[in-house]
Amino acid sequence: MAQEIASLESVLEEHIPNDKLKEVKRILFGTRAKDLELPSEVTDIASKHDFEVKAFQMDAGKEQLRPPRTVRIGLIQNKIVLPTSAPVQEQRDALHQRIGQIAEAAYHAKVNILCFQETWTIPFAFCTREKLPWVELAESAEDGPTTVLCQEWAKKYNMVIISPILERDSSRGDILQNTAVVISNTGQVLGKSSKNHIPRVGDFNESTYYFEGSTGHRVFETQFEIVFNPSATVGGLSEPMWSIEARNAAIANTYFAAAINRVGTEVFENEFTSGDGKPAHKDFGHFYGSSYVAAPDGSRTPGLSRTRDGLLVTEVNLNLIRQIKDKWCFQMTGRYDMYARELTEATTPGFQPNIIKEN
Amino acid sequence: MAQEIASLESVLEEHIPNDKLKEVKRILFGTRAKDLELPSEVTDIASKHDFEVKAFQMDAGKEQLRPPRTVRIGLIQNKIVLPTSAPVQEQRDALHQRIGQIAEAAYHAKVNILCFQETWTIPFAFCTREKLPWVELAESAEDGPTTVLCQEWAKKYNMVIISPILERDSSRGDILQNTAVVISNTGQVLGKSSKNHIPRVGDFNESTYYFEGSTGHRVFETQFEIVFNPSATVGGLSEPMWSIEARNAAIANTYFAAAINRVGTEVFENEFTSGDGKPAHKDFGHFYGSSYVAAPDGSRTPGLSRTRDGLLVTEVNLNLIRQIKDKWCFQMTGRYDMYARELTEATTPGFQPNIIKEN
Repeated sequence: MAQEIASLESVLEEHIPNDKLKEVKRILFGTRAKDLELPSEVTDIASKHDFEVKAFQMDAGKEQLRPPRTVRIGLIQNKIVLPTSAPVQEQRDALHQRIGQIAEAAYHAKVNILCFQETWTIPFAFCTREKLPWVELAESAEDGPTTVLCQEWAKKYNMVIISPILERDSSRGDILQNTAVVISNTGQVLGKSSKNHIPRVGDFNESTYYFEGSTGHRVFETQFEIVFNPSATVGGLSEPMWSIEARNAAIANTYFAAAINRVGTEVFENEFTSGDGKPAHKDFGHFYGSSYVAAPDGSRTPGLSRTRDGLLVTEVNLNLIRQIKDKWCFQMTGRYDMYARELTEATTPGFQPNIIKEN
Repeated sequence: MAQEIASLESVLEEHIPNDKLKEVKRILFGTRAKDLELPSEVTDIASKHDFEVKAFQMDAGKEQLRPPRTVRIGLIQNKIVLPTSAPVQEQRDALHQRIGQIAEAAYHAKVNILCFQETWTIPFAFCTREKLPWVELAESAEDGPTTVLCQEWAKKYNMVIISPILERDSSRGDILQNTAVVISNTGQVLGKSSKNHIPRVGDFNESTYYFEGSTGHRVFETQFEIVFNPSATVGGLSEPMWSIEARNAAIANTYFAAAINRVGTEVFENEFTSGDGKPAHKDFGHFYGSSYVAAPDGSRTPGLSRTRDGLLVTEVNLNLIRQIKDKWCFQMTGRYDMYARELTEATTPGFQPNIIKEN
C-alpha cells in the first residue's frame, strides 16, 4: 500500500462537491455533530507539541423540565514516543510526559472526562509473545506510578480520568489484567474494570499475557451513560469494522460510545511470526487511530487522524439519551426476557438449536 | 433536499480518484466482494422490465478437506406498482406480477435462495393507522394466495423463497403477524418466522396492526448460516444506521446477513399526522433501498440503488463462516455464560445495577 491516507473524511472533503458531500456525510455519519469552538490555548498547545485537535458538539432537543446536561468527553490517541528498545522506564516516562501535554490541552478545552487508549503506558507488544521486558511495565491499578500520576492530573485539571493499563494484581497472586482504572476528579480511585472478552486472533496474542476479567459490567459514579472503549487495532484486521461496532453499541443500548485506537507502527527488536505462513517480521501493522464518539441516535463525530497523535473533544448533551429512549423505545420493545432465556438455553450443556428441516 | 442521490457508491466512484478510491472502499466496505458475471438473459430481463441488477462474489480460502460451498443469494427491492388508491386486489396482483419478472431474472442468475422485502405484497401503510383496506391484504402463511404463488415459483425456478407478508393467522383467533414464510425449492412451506421486536417509533405504527411474534429464533432447513432481514425504512429515520446493523450482526455472530429495504415514496389517499407537531401529510418519506449482503469478516457488498427496483445477486462461499470462526474465535472467547447470567439478572424484577459511586 502507498502512504497511509490521513482520514476517510479528509478524502471525502477534498474530492466530493459540496452539494453531494452533505448527503454523503449524512448517510455515513448521521447529522448530529457540529463543530465546537475551543479556546486558543488548546490550539496553541497542540501546535507547539504537534498533535491534532478536533472538537464537536452533539446536542439534544430543549426540554421544559430538565436543563441541558452537557459533558465534554476527551479522547486521546497517540503513538509510542521512544523506540521499543529503550529502557522500559524511559519508555513509560516518555509516554507519561507526552500524555501530560495533551491532557493539559484537554483541561483548556474544559474536558470533564478524559480517556486514554488501551494499555497506554506500553507498546502493544503482545504480538511478540515475549514476556520481558513488557510485563515489567505491569503495575498496580490502585497505587502504581501511572495511577498516582493520573490522580494528580485529575485533581489539577478537575476531570475524571479513565486510564487503561496493563495491571498487575499482587493481591490476587500476581495475575495480570487489561484494566481501565477510573479516577474521580477529586483524585480518588473509584474502581476498575477489566477487559472481559480477550481476543485470540492473529498477532493479538493477548491471552498469553492476561486472562478474562471478572469485574463484570460495572457503571461508575454517575449515570453518565457513556461507554468508553479503549482499543488498539490495526488496519488489515479491523478497519472496515471500526465505524460499525461502537456505533452499533450506541444504537442498540441507547448510550454514547467512545472508541479510541492508538496510532502508528510499533517496531520491535526481535522478529516474530504471525502464524500465517509468512516470514518473520518486526511489526504487526499500522494502528490507524480514527478515534470517534457515537451517539445513541446512530450519528457519530468525524474521526481523528489515521496517522497523528490527537485529542478529540466532544461535548454531548446527555438529555439525548432519554430522548432517544422515548423515541425508539428499545428499552421497552426489546424482547430482553426472550433473549435472556434463549441465551441461557444456548449456553447450557446439551442445548439443541431449533432447526426446522424439510420432511 | 434536492433529488435523491442514486447511491453512496456511485458518488464515491464519480468523484474520488482511483488511487484513493480503493482505500476509501476498503475502509467503508472491506475488500471481499468481487464482481460476478451473469448470463445475458438476466440483463436482458432487467433492461426490458426496468430494474437494476448487481452481482457480487464473496469467496473464501481454499481448504483441503472441504470443497467450496457456494450459495447464490438473491435480494429483491421494489417500489409499489399501483397507486395506494387502487383496489387492493389489483395492487397485490400488480406486485405479484412485478416480483415475478424479477424472480425470473433471479432464476437465470442461478439464485438458490431468494428473499423479498418486508410485507412485500402491500404498501407500508402502517403510518396511516387506518386498518382498511390494508388488513384485507393480510393472508394465511400456509396457503394464502401469495404463498401459493411463491410455491409455484420455488418449484419452477428450483429456489428457496423467503416471502415476508402481513399474516392473518385464523387458527389463532385472527391475529395478525409480520411473518416471513420460508418455502423450500420443492415448493413445500417449511415454516415461518414472525417479527419478534416490533418498533413503535415515529410513523412506524406497526404495533397497532400486529404484536410481537412468538416463534423465537428459528433456523430453517440447513445450517446455511445466512440471516435475512427484510426491512422497510426511510431516510430521515435510519439511513446512517443502515450500513451498521446488519454488518454488526454478521460480525458479532459470524454469519452472512442480508439487508433488504423497499424503494420509493408511498403516497396515501387520506392525510395523517406523525405525532411530531408538524402538519398532516400523505407520505412518510423516501424508502432508500440500498439492499446489501454483509459477510462475517465485516466486509459487505455495495448496495443496490437508493431509487430503483433491483435484484442483488451475491454468491457466497459458506466455508468463510467456519474460517472466520477459527480465526476470530468469538464462539469460544465470547463470555456468553456471563452475558446470559447478567441479562437474566437485568430482566428480573427488583434488579439493581452495579453502580460504583464515590465515597
